[in-house]
Amino acid sequence: MFTKKGQRLIIILVCLLALITPAFGADPSGAATFEENPDTAINFAWVLICGFLVMSMQAGFALLEAGLTRAKNAANIMMKNMVDFCIGALGYWAIGFALMMGTATGITGLMIGLNGFFLWGDAYDVTTIELWFWQMVFCATAATIVSGAMAERTKFSVYCLASLIVTAFIYPIYGHWMWGGGWLAGLGALDFAGSGVVHAVGGFIALAGAWLVGPRLGKYRKDGTPNGIPGHSITLAILGVFILWFGWFGFNPGSTLAATELRISIIAANTVLAAAAGGIMAMIITWWKFGKPDVPMTGNGVIAGLVAITAGCAWVNPSASVLIGLIAGALVVASVWFIDWKLRIDDPVGAISVHGVCGIWGILALGLLADGTYGEVTGLLYGNAGFMVSQVISAVTVFIWAFGMGAVMFYILKKTVGLRVSDREQIEGLDIGEHGMSAYPDFVPTEPSVKGD
Amino acid sequence: MFTKKGQRLIIILVCLLALITPAFGADPSGAATFEENPDTAINFAWVLICGFLVMSMQAGFALLEAGLTRAKNAANIMMKNMVDFCIGALGYWAIGFALMMGTATGITGLMIGLNGFFLWGDAYDVTTIELWFWQMVFCATAATIVSGAMAERTKFSVYCLASLIVTAFIYPIYGHWMWGGGWLAGLGALDFAGSGVVHAVGGFIALAGAWLVGPRLGKYRKDGTPNGIPGHSITLAILGVFILWFGWFGFNPGSTLAATELRISIIAANTVLAAAAGGIMAMIITWWKFGKPDVPMTGNGVIAGLVAITAGCAWVNPSASVLIGLIAGALVVASVWFIDWKLRIDDPVGAISVHGVCGIWGILALGLLADGTYGEVTGLLYGNAGFMVSQVISAVTVFIWAFGMGAVMFYILKKTVGLRVSDREQIEGLDIGEHGMSAYPDFVPTEPSVKGD
Amino acid sequence: MFTKKGQRLIIILVCLLALITPAFGADPSGAATFEENPDTAINFAWVLICGFLVMSMQAGFALLEAGLTRAKNAANIMMKNMVDFCIGALGYWAIGFALMMGTATGITGLMIGLNGFFLWGDAYDVTTIELWFWQMVFCATAATIVSGAMAERTKFSVYCLASLIVTAFIYPIYGHWMWGGGWLAGLGALDFAGSGVVHAVGGFIALAGAWLVGPRLGKYRKDGTPNGIPGHSITLAILGVFILWFGWFGFNPGSTLAATELRISIIAANTVLAAAAGGIMAMIITWWKFGKPDVPMTGNGVIAGLVAITAGCAWVNPSASVLIGLIAGALVVASVWFIDWKLRIDDPVGAISVHGVCGIWGILALGLLADGTYGEVTGLLYGNAGFMVSQVISAVTVFIWAFGMGAVMFYILKKTVGLRVSDREQIEGLDIGEHGMSAYPDFVPTEPSVKGD
Repeated sequence: MFTKKGQRLIIILVCLLALITPAFGADPSGAATFEENPDTAINFAWVLICGFLVMSMQAGFALLEAGLTRAKNAANIMMKNMVDFCIGALGYWAIGFALMMGTATGITGLMIGLNGFFLWGDAYDVTTIELWFWQMVFCATAATIVSGAMAERTKFSVYCLASLIVTAFIYPIYGHWMWGGGWLAGLGALDFAGSGVVHAVGGFIALAGAWLVGPRLGKYRKDGTPNGIPGHSITLAILGVFILWFGWFGFNPGSTLAATELRISIIAANTVLAAAAGGIMAMIITWWKFGKPDVPMTGNGVIAGLVAITAGCAWVNPSASVLIGLIAGALVVASVWFIDWKLRIDDPVGAISVHGVCGIWGILALGLLADGTYGEVTGLLYGNAGFMVSQVISAVTVFIWAFGMGAVMFYILKKTVGLRVSDREQIEGLDIGEHGMSAYPDFVPTEPSVKGD
Repeated sequence: MFTKKGQRLIIILVCLLALITPAFGADPSGAATFEENPDTAINFAWVLICGFLVMSMQAGFALLEAGLTRAKNAANIMMKNMVDFCIGALGYWAIGFALMMGTATGITGLMIGLNGFFLWGDAYDVTTIELWFWQMVFCATAATIVSGAMAERTKFSVYCLASLIVTAFIYPIYGHWMWGGGWLAGLGALDFAGSGVVHAVGGFIALAGAWLVGPRLGKYRKDGTPNGIPGHSITLAILGVFILWFGWFGFNPGSTLAATELRISIIAANTVLAAAAGGIMAMIITWWKFGKPDVPMTGNGVIAGLVAITAGCAWVNPSASVLIGLIAGALVVASVWFIDWKLRIDDPVGAISVHGVCGIWGILALGLLADGTYGEVTGLLYGNAGFMVSQVISAVTVFIWAFGMGAVMFYILKKTVGLRVSDREQIEGLDIGEHGMSAYPDFVPTEPSVKGD
Repeated sequence: MFTKKGQRLIIILVCLLALITPAFGADPSGAATFEENPDTAINFAWVLICGFLVMSMQAGFALLEAGLTRAKNAANIMMKNMVDFCIGALGYWAIGFALMMGTATGITGLMIGLNGFFLWGDAYDVTTIELWFWQMVFCATAATIVSGAMAERTKFSVYCLASLIVTAFIYPIYGHWMWGGGWLAGLGALDFAGSGVVHAVGGFIALAGAWLVGPRLGKYRKDGTPNGIPGHSITLAILGVFILWFGWFGFNPGSTLAATELRISIIAANTVLAAAAGGIMAMIITWWKFGKPDVPMTGNGVIAGLVAITAGCAWVNPSASVLIGLIAGALVVASVWFIDWKLRIDDPVGAISVHGVCGIWGILALGLLADGTYGEVTGLLYGNAGFMVSQVISAVTVFIWAFGMGAVMFYILKKTVGLRVSDREQIEGLDIGEHGMSAYPDFVPTEPSVKGD
């Protein structure tokens, strides 16, 4: 990636930068903040603990992706999911947070923030850094979604670079438009916990990536019909679903940023109900269609329900959440089929359908079903057409931005470093090719996983 | 299960129902509740976060069950544990919560509650829904206990139906008697976090199920002595124990429903001490008996300690907790042996012993050892014989209710849809038979797991 | 270990002891404590939930160790990690807590505490037991670190005895010096969350143990160069890293013991940044050195960063945390190489490097980089040389104490019960030898894992 000299220079530079951080910011001890409003204690505890749960979703994404793909790529997949969180934390610390939650004057401020780089200066403040922590775990979630759609054939180095670009630029800029005081917020568009900001952004960057990197060897037959490539551990994949579900209880209720907003109980209930409905719907549809309830698809139905309720969880009621989940569960099955058979884009874990398509559904469902009981947010079915229009604009925007920027990024990476590993490496597995190891050396592999497909 | 037309009708119906939810309930925003008592913020945060931990136990149950059974059934087991939580959330939302925590006038109210169905009307309230969330994760725990005892030979469709009946009817009705203002509460019986309400209910429904479904092929020899059928991943099984232990820190301390009850620290300490004592005791006994410390039994000892301390954790002291755990650890070893060798009921994971038998021990231990330092609850050893009598009544009741209703339910299911998969499916594995897949296609299986026993 | 009579006597004794606990302590209900200061509610909730996260690290340690070692020892490793937590909880309840956090008059009090055994008497108090719970999960963490360094050849019974000695004596005494009002605290040495108290203590006991037990069969060739012995599940190992990272968000921010200290947000941010920097640095170094980014070493880099930031997380700024993590990531790679190639001590998981070496670096980094913005703690770079001297003394002390006491303990155990299993047992695997079972009976093992190396 860099010459040795260049690499050393970068490290020395970072070390020096660390020392020039001003030792005093706005309120780095928190004493003044607490004195001003003692409720900040419970709100900080709430946001941080919920943020820890969101961080745990990284493990869920890793297991879901690794479980649904082949044993010969498992170490590579775990590595990607660990490293993208490292890169995301550092990228969002250095650049992303400033672009997203920073401020800027005039028109610029509608597009982008410009202060808080490296959490220097006034950003060395308990409230600012609480917000940084919260937004950082969200940012890393968006990045990790891309991993699954490009699994089993993408170069590790490319994935690292893409993670840095997503967490430092692509995610934060759309994030600024919606959550940082940008133009979408100005239009009145809303996205409570990020069906759009996090999931649709991740899902449509993933669409660009999966499309440009091309399908795995053996995924499509000569006649263009797709082969199923079964995952190597359904146990770990479903453990991943459980961990994601658990972490989502941080993701959605924590997005109040305050436990003093007692609506958190309804948000938690909406979250669990949409997930349950999504899982049941996906199960029933596969049971009808294929005669047997499909395990990975039911897991994807659960996550589809979670993605879809994320935008509206604070503003809809439990019955509407069940409805949102049911539709998400149906959508994800249809979308996985459509992408696999019609678009012929190879998405090993269904990330585009789960996060992209159901993310859009979440944005629209909020515009439709917000019932006006909290924060005076009212949807189309309760008579507010204007809000629905804002939501449609934000849905179109997130698709164009995420897919467009993702396509530009991966196109440039393709023409420079190249996206795909060699066919030989793909057949042998990325564990050997990228990391010189095997994830499971103590077990005898079945033939296909050694020789490819 | 249903005709296609019927299925579609049901879905359309649910969708319509969602829209008629009244948009205004008691306090759906939470503003009035918070203004009335600002402590609700910390109490909501406490209860919700503890509830999230309880939800994570679903992953623990799934891994414990999957790890202690064979690879050929792993996908089916993960699926059961994921879907029973989906069904539990929806069943408890639609019906269970109203029966359990709802109110009713006169004699009816001693037996059953009758409002709050679908969280409609006045139930659309932050406090009511906080309680719903808490009780829902408990309800789903009771349901999932049944899964383990019936593993490796029960039809998936039957398990789905049973989960619905348990979470919508059997669990909530006993729950009403104890926690919803019913007749057991009126008698003075107590069960802090549910040794009886959750664990004994689950454990004795499991007893009925395991008995009626019959043993796995190859479990009993012609002379009636049991074969050990080893689990396929001790690593995942013990990970399951860790996750359950972690989640139990939500289960027990969260049952104060308030962080302003500082007794939570002692509850947490009692929880960890009983679990540790249970594990050590089970380990020592197997070490004595068989010459080597047994790994799955030590794990079951930990969970037995947790189940047994659940009823009394708020009202006993740390030393008594150690004692309760030690006895639970001994009980579980004896009970597993008794059920396996004497009753000849095949319980692959020991769920009946862990949850049923140790649940009863927990109810009685509370009646014996409550020391009067909290809430003026005093047990037999501290001079209060009357309380012990109430506890004995509640122990007898939970056995009769759970085993009786479980037997009725599974008997009807047996005579209608049938409980067991075919012998051939059992030999090939439920992953193929029920879901048309393999959990671990990339690894070469050893002979027994392919051909049965 | 004991004669049968002796064992029975011990159990009866413990049972009797349980009953003589006085039923009334200082404030067992918590009502008086809450009335005096209502903020205790949020602080109790914060400390307990963070403590639950710390407890979850036990699962992380178990998976990391099991994943990085061979399948034939996996059940033994999971068992060790489960049982050391059981023993730690009981040992710290009976003895450890009194020695560490108890008080004593005069010179004695500088060395050791002497009250609170079994949480009897005045220790039956919500505040005391909150502190007990918090310190107990820390104590158990120190104990479990030893497990990894001695994996795959140590007798299970020896490990149980060592866990008891560590949690009842070795850990608590050093802990008293630093956190219980002992002489190191008197000198002005600081260790916010235990880079020294927990990690360096665990890491240097591990050094003594790994040295005295000797290397695994086949680890060193005749010419003294080390063989790599690959782990059996990189997936589970990296899942372990994720769980440890998640749990560390309890470990560090929870060490304020109060959510009213809003510095918790900066502590959480510092924790994630150091971990990310450690992971990236270890990845980059292995990429340079070996041509490919190494997966387990990157995981160890993450944990090295976490260990190193633990002492200073409350007192340094985010940029300094990145620097601390970067250096920890480099240190761990160098140290693993040095211990493997130069000291020729066989540490299967790198525990000595991660916890011992990076623990020392954490203590010194605090002395160097504390920026004076919180609690008036200022390091050498900000002009306070005296504090750095205290930190150096504490670093030397922790090495001498932990390595010295570890060496004494393991030497005595070696000369009495013996540390190592037989060569034959080592070749067959400890799962069979120690527990009479196999962790993965359903999968065909590759040759080396059956026949040894």
